[in-house]
Amino acid sequence: MYDIAIIGGGPAGLSAAVNARRRNKKTIIISKEEQSSKILQAHLIQNYLGLPEISGPELGGRMKEHALALGTTFLKDEIQSLYQEGRSFTLMGRENAIQASAVVLAVGIALGKEIAGETDFIGRGVSYCATCDGLFFKGKTVALIGYIPEAEAEANFLAEVCQKVYFIPQYSFKGELNPNVELWEGKPLSIFGEKKVEALKTSNGELAIDGVFIERSGRPVEQLIDGLKVEGGFIITDPEQATNINGIFAAGDCTGKPWQIGKAIGQGQVAALAAVHYLETLS
Amino acid sequence: MYDIAIIGGGPAGLSAAVNARRRNKKTIIISKEEQSSKILQAHLIQNYLGLPEISGPELGGRMKEHALALGTTFLKDEIQSLYQEGRSFTLMGRENAIQASAVVLAVGIALGKEIAGETDFIGRGVSYCATCDGLFFKGKTVALIGYIPEAEAEANFLAEVCQKVYFIPQYSFKGELNPNVELWEGKPLSIFGEKKVEALKTSNGELAIDGVFIERSGRPVEQLIDGLKVEGGFIITDPEQATNINGIFAAGDCTGKPWQIGKAIGQGQVAALAAVHYLETLS
Repeated sequence: MYDIAIIGGGPAGLSAAVNARRRNKKTIIISKEEQSSKILQAHLIQNYLGLPEISGPELGGRMKEHALALGTTFLKDEIQSLYQEGRSFTLMGRENAIQASAVVLAVGIALGKEIAGETDFIGRGVSYCATCDGLFFKGKTVALIGYIPEAEAEANFLAEVCQKVYFIPQYSFKGELNPNVELWEGKPLSIFGEKKVEALKTSNGELAIDGVFIERSGRPVEQLIDGLKVEGGFIITDPEQATNINGIFAAGDCTGKPWQIGKAIGQGQVAALAAVHYLETLS
Repeated sequence: MYDIAIIGGGPAGLSAAVNARRRNKKTIIISKEEQSSKILQAHLIQNYLGLPEISGPELGGRMKEHALALGTTFLKDEIQSLYQEGRSFTLMGRENAIQASAVVLAVGIALGKEIAGETDFIGRGVSYCATCDGLFFKGKTVALIGYIPEAEAEANFLAEVCQKVYFIPQYSFKGELNPNVELWEGKPLSIFGEKKVEALKTSNGELAIDGVFIERSGRPVEQLIDGLKVEGGFIITDPEQATNINGIFAAGDCTGKPWQIGKAIGQGQVAALAAVHYLETLS
């Protein structure tokens, strides 16, 4: 049981952790990467005040080191969803379940382009977690679009539940699939239907389906928790970085532009201090 | 003529400057101190992400160096007021007048305690600039409360205009005063009156006056420009750090709590980028 769980290990999440630890809160960062891939890709950063002319990997390394030195727990996992139970939150990762009294969302922005129709059908046939939602499609036909090798295990899981599974890998796939999984080559173009998903258009033809599972690194924030207020893909916060759900705060790129490190660490700090204040109201 | 003038040389102002310069804008910082006295007083800063365990003077020095290395002009002066003329702003310092197309207020918070009644009577008998407002009190009786030695010159200026001037220094005063300036010993306790200032209560008795001039380092932000929206002493901004006056942005401690370096540099960055965007709308 943690005081504050931070989802995301980029500058916003690391800043939240440093500030939470300075207030002596039991703090965990759950990050799908050891280091933010965006910061790793930055050749040269010239506008992080006080550290001119620093490479992304070096700045990222220093930031992570700082958070760890102050006693932050760092867990590599990807949170699939979270839910509230009484006064605490449970965060479901691919491999772990974490409990915390307050949550800071610092999930960044998904680098991948979404599929046409994707966000329109979230909860109406589009899902990002086979193990979470597979049973809703018992005896039905589904497609699983996989951008990462983790998708294979999900496809095989769906094969146990669904009548038919189309597996549509978007990476070079060389694995084994369950017999009632059909490998489908092509690019996903659009998801459509009347009220619910009915078909997936691909570069290799159209598939009649009841649901689409999408396995990629990063996902729309709406999908993380029911009822989170999101506009244009970005989490809505107040000036204290509080979301519309009591106990959940958000910071960094996932709250909107500008996508900048300075803004991210400022918001991470404000979010952590607001979370600390929220914890005081619980006791 | 500058593109962006930044009032205040603390972390928020320096961050705004770095980001404005990175967008190639002609940028000036006007600061009443060479270095933020708040950061100079910080023995050890442990929560500036990426630079753990750094002293205030060292961090402040690195930040200023960064802004200067990118080509920011730094001017030591204290802005008394600013006004808009067409599409540009004029900033009046003690010794300079600066013109700019956009302004970032990063003035911090005044460290001194205000006098009871002070903010109630701004513009109704309370003023912070003798050379600006002295003529409104021609032939009248005023008090000048001085927290800094610069007050002496102001008292002598008022003596040329007003019938009588009470000079009430709050530091050890050993200067020369104009004959119709009366040195008054004591602490200012409260300013009062019906619609306008009528009297000043001091620890040494009450003075019947028409106006009070207060000379201290730092002043209420309301006083900087007519119509600026301020609540509880803090400048109101939107998420882009824009104030209610088109072309004026604000960042850092002057926008409210938390008073933290990370938050200040984040807001300074956002304010600068918003100012850059504003400049684009002008051309």
